[in-house]
Amino acid sequence: MGSADYVYPSTATNMEEPGPRVAIPPPQPFVKSFMYSLKETLFPDDPFRQFKNQPPSRKLLLGLQFFFPVLEWAPRYTLSFFKSDVIAGITIASLAIPQGISYAKLANLPPILGLYSSFVPPLIYAMMGSSRDMAVGTVAIGSLLLGSMLSGAVDPNVDPKLFLHLAFTATFFAGILQASLGLFRLGFIVDFLSHASIVGFMGGAATVVCLQQLKSILGLVHFTHDADLVSMMRSIFSQTHEWRWESAVLGCGFIFFLLVTRYFSKRRPKFFWVSAMAPLTSVILGSLLVYLTHAEKHGIQVIGELKKGLNPLSFKDLVFVSPYVSTAVKAGFVTGIITLAEGIAVGRSFAMFKGYHTDGNKEMIAIGTMNIVGSLTSCYLTTGPFSRSAVNYNAGCKTAVSNIVMAIAVMITLLFLTPLFYYTPLVVLAAIIVSAMLGLIDYQAAIHLWKIDKFDFFVCISAYVGVVFGSVDIGLVIAVFISVLRLLLFVARPRTFVLGNIPNSVVYRNVEQYPNATPVPGILILEIDSPIYFANASYLRERITRWIDEEEDRIKAAGETGLQSVILDMTTIGNIDTSGISMLEEVNKIADRRGLQLVLVNPGSEVMKKLNKAKFIEAIGQKWVFLTVEEAVRACNYMLHTCKPNPGKDESEACWNNV
Amino acid sequence: MGSADYVYPSTATNMEEPGPRVAIPPPQPFVKSFMYSLKETLFPDDPFRQFKNQPPSRKLLLGLQFFFPVLEWAPRYTLSFFKSDVIAGITIASLAIPQGISYAKLANLPPILGLYSSFVPPLIYAMMGSSRDMAVGTVAIGSLLLGSMLSGAVDPNVDPKLFLHLAFTATFFAGILQASLGLFRLGFIVDFLSHASIVGFMGGAATVVCLQQLKSILGLVHFTHDADLVSMMRSIFSQTHEWRWESAVLGCGFIFFLLVTRYFSKRRPKFFWVSAMAPLTSVILGSLLVYLTHAEKHGIQVIGELKKGLNPLSFKDLVFVSPYVSTAVKAGFVTGIITLAEGIAVGRSFAMFKGYHTDGNKEMIAIGTMNIVGSLTSCYLTTGPFSRSAVNYNAGCKTAVSNIVMAIAVMITLLFLTPLFYYTPLVVLAAIIVSAMLGLIDYQAAIHLWKIDKFDFFVCISAYVGVVFGSVDIGLVIAVFISVLRLLLFVARPRTFVLGNIPNSVVYRNVEQYPNATPVPGILILEIDSPIYFANASYLRERITRWIDEEEDRIKAAGETGLQSVILDMTTIGNIDTSGISMLEEVNKIADRRGLQLVLVNPGSEVMKKLNKAKFIEAIGQKWVFLTVEEAVRACNYMLHTCKPNPGKDESEACWNNV
Repeated sequence: MGSADYVYPSTATNMEEPGPRVAIPPPQPFVKSFMYSLKETLFPDDPFRQFKNQPPSRKLLLGLQFFFPVLEWAPRYTLSFFKSDVIAGITIASLAIPQGISYAKLANLPPILGLYSSFVPPLIYAMMGSSRDMAVGTVAIGSLLLGSMLSGAVDPNVDPKLFLHLAFTATFFAGILQASLGLFRLGFIVDFLSHASIVGFMGGAATVVCLQQLKSILGLVHFTHDADLVSMMRSIFSQTHEWRWESAVLGCGFIFFLLVTRYFSKRRPKFFWVSAMAPLTSVILGSLLVYLTHAEKHGIQVIGELKKGLNPLSFKDLVFVSPYVSTAVKAGFVTGIITLAEGIAVGRSFAMFKGYHTDGNKEMIAIGTMNIVGSLTSCYLTTGPFSRSAVNYNAGCKTAVSNIVMAIAVMITLLFLTPLFYYTPLVVLAAIIVSAMLGLIDYQAAIHLWKIDKFDFFVCISAYVGVVFGSVDIGLVIAVFISVLRLLLFVARPRTFVLGNIPNSVVYRNVEQYPNATPVPGILILEIDSPIYFANASYLRERITRWIDEEEDRIKAAGETGLQSVILDMTTIGNIDTSGISMLEEVNKIADRRGLQLVLVNPGSEVMKKLNKAKFIEAIGQKWVFLTVEEAVRACNYMLHTCKPNPGKDESEACWNNV
Repeated sequence: MGSADYVYPSTATNMEEPGPRVAIPPPQPFVKSFMYSLKETLFPDDPFRQFKNQPPSRKLLLGLQFFFPVLEWAPRYTLSFFKSDVIAGITIASLAIPQGISYAKLANLPPILGLYSSFVPPLIYAMMGSSRDMAVGTVAIGSLLLGSMLSGAVDPNVDPKLFLHLAFTATFFAGILQASLGLFRLGFIVDFLSHASIVGFMGGAATVVCLQQLKSILGLVHFTHDADLVSMMRSIFSQTHEWRWESAVLGCGFIFFLLVTRYFSKRRPKFFWVSAMAPLTSVILGSLLVYLTHAEKHGIQVIGELKKGLNPLSFKDLVFVSPYVSTAVKAGFVTGIITLAEGIAVGRSFAMFKGYHTDGNKEMIAIGTMNIVGSLTSCYLTTGPFSRSAVNYNAGCKTAVSNIVMAIAVMITLLFLTPLFYYTPLVVLAAIIVSAMLGLIDYQAAIHLWKIDKFDFFVCISAYVGVVFGSVDIGLVIAVFISVLRLLLFVARPRTFVLGNIPNSVVYRNVEQYPNATPVPGILILEIDSPIYFANASYLRERITRWIDEEEDRIKAAGETGLQSVILDMTTIGNIDTSGISMLEEVNKIADRRGLQLVLVNPGSEVMKKLNKAKFIEAIGQKWVFLTVEEAVRACNYMLHTCKPNPGKDESEACWNNV
């Protein structure tokens, strides 16, 4: 052996005898591995775990408890829980009534629907939901989206009845979709709405909703149906002579009042009820003011008559006829996914705070059922809104019983108190919406995204711009498209690194990240940080060839020992497909032609199996597949030093074969 | 220190002093890292490398050579090259003429267009192409696809002129798209057509084309316009009384002849010209037969009159008016991408064989220009067909001059020989198409896919079934969708592994793959094999929690030491986004609540930077971020053995702080 002109890593004790090679894993039956991947894809949380080794009666009970969590917690329910739940329930009811009316207006639906929707769905959720903190009701974004998507097919001013029926139908389909996603364990589809895209989307929608409220606040009678910034601004400034100062003063006053109470409650969490009660207080104050001053005769628009009585049944109103049903399906699916994402995220966040667990797929079934039943009882799209759930949480709710209390409060309102809302001015409702929406424009989250991940920020801003200047659905499509594009780009353009030896160790790391890592002379060690798939196979072939070119140029310039081998560290390659294997075969040919030995390190079992089946392991020789970079380097060095000065592969074939 | 009840890995010499931590990389200006990613995404092959440090005149020459590779190789052209190229050129011309006529019929275009398209485009490619082996011409699948997509807008039997003009327009847009992809370095879009999907797609299209030829072979006059198996079978078997045995006998005879010659040439590669000449021979034989027997009067359909003369200009024929232009754009883009993929793959494969390099983006510009110029000179969609290029390669072509020779041969045909094709029976053309198509049904590749990668096989079969039972575009969409879904699923459901120590080493590997790897008591070491993105953040939170649950159950059952720490090996995590960081924060909270220490190992610089900016490193403490699993295990063991028997984290906080 020639004298080593650089120090071997310290632990390399026996240079002549290269270390262990990577074994080829035993073949697995296809069905078994298929079932395993299916299980990991659809049942990652292993919901059947607790059913194992249980008697049938217990299995039945567990099954019922799975679909109706109320059976699980009801037996353990105590009086002290009940006290807390009543307080929380009344608090959220005082928020739910004015918000319900406001959001129904946002969806171009009769205000009474907002109250109906706060009665039946909370009762269903109390039986089926696994979150203890979620307060059920309608949401601003969902209402806006539903209203704008259905307006495309039917003008709510021309045919309000058909519009209403379409809203029920869309809610029905939303429920069907939500429940099916849960039942078929496809909840992960919701994960494709990234946090960043939701921040941008919500902010954009909130901006649009705020601008729309200028109609009521300025007391305008005519307003554009388009929901983009440009159309709305044009509509507002083209009729400056129609602006009514009475309305504007009232509106700004109430917005100010609502914002101040919220600020106060935020600073002193104990007084959460101040901001929770503020909307109802505004409604009462506004109604009294109108009633006393007869302002409704001076251009202040009011809600008018609300029908007394509980939800009428509406299953006969569902529209399944041709031109309308497709609109309803589309609107239902889009709004269903969006509101589902909000509901799931809300449930999960509060569960996280309190340290219990919610099951995403189970929640989907609960929310879906709630919407299906809702659509049959004159309710429209509901979910677990963040604002209302936060109030519920702050009010100290213990279980879903607070939803039942809220439903009872709404029921009493529906039965006896609706006439009180006759004089409620629309401008107060607008103020309630604006103050709620301002909280959704989460500029701090956007700044956080910019600081940590520029691409996420880009996704967020694209969604925002798409919603504000295009439309709500355009923004959504843009956000999902860019988010998915990012995943694809990650795979299409993986990063490749050159590894070097960390001095006095057997560790090899990226030389860019660890400046003290020194490349091994004559050996190029590469790492690829993604699976090798069709989408990146051509790129990687180019890139690896370029690494070799650059290394050879560098060596020539520095006058060092020629390049002898290329080590591919496969640790980070999770998987490979047939295009990836062809790519490796081509790289091996290129290496061959230049007299280089290709060496693999630590391929995973999946990769190893495929490489073996494709006879690639045979092509490079199993002796060239090592467990660690260190072993590979040692084997290459053995060849390099023993077989010097033959640079080509062919001449030193005999020597290599001795390794 | 308590007495160790298991052996430490052999190299752990100094237990009291944990090893190096991972440093936080210095911040990089955003613009710099952005430009770097942009370069890696769009210029992975670094085309400007040779321009560096060159005088301006040399730069100009290199630039011209970049766009016109002919300037590079023409000065080195020799007479011996020319001899080889003439032989190859004549051989491919003899194939190009009958194939051109046949494929033009497939696209519902006048047969003469096939000859036009073998004249101008090869001349353009000879100037601009970087492949030495590609023979330019029309392709069956492209022709079929173009014909079927345009038929949707215009019936070629009702308005053949408009149909022809639409074909030029579609070719024009295909060229624009191809050249733009190349110019804007977006060639990687073609990579999203995976090899597996192309095998299935080609096989399906070939099946459909073969079935369509039954029309000519059975001598049918009426035939369905639909291109799916069911419609075609119904059309054929609903008119059995119309079948003409003369036509069928002739057709089967020629198919047999063509297949036998191909089989012969495959067995004896020296006689490649036998199969190359067979189509022209068939045409001559068939024409003679019809001429002598006057079979055209007995139900054998013939080509009829072909116009003499070179390509007329067609730039005035391009259609840019409203209802048609969108069809042309769509057809152009779809067929442009498909044929581009074939051309690029063909160029690359032969370059691989001969050991030279083709530049994908440059090839796109060449193919695009060829189609733009072609569309202005009465040609329709051309690319580098595999069959013709293989003949060119086998015939010993040296440079793109063989394309020029072919173009001259076609020119002579156009000027003088077109009347000879008057009596050519359509059934011979059908036989030529069928025999070419049978070679495209690559069942061996499908078997290979099944053996190596079941998912690739699934993609392939889906594309095949989509094309055969749906339509060509449905098959294509299915194939691309499933291929992309696979990438998304890889990211959405990454695999997680438990690592164990390989005995007598400092190496930690997946315990499933290496059964001798032993888990470290009290420590759970996990590895995730994909980046952590929004699409998998929820899944990973569930999965990691489940690993911890299962490990604690196992420990309880076995009565071992309680779990103390969870080590996440981040080596394989290429990147992380804000959703991923939130997930880690939640996992850290979960670990905290259970009294477990979360330890990170070897995060990459990108990941480390983001974790630091998000203050996650601060949250777990930088002292808990190690370079190797070994170091992390040693630090955890130090705590475990020194701080026994305090299982909770809080009690042993002081001890941890000593690490």
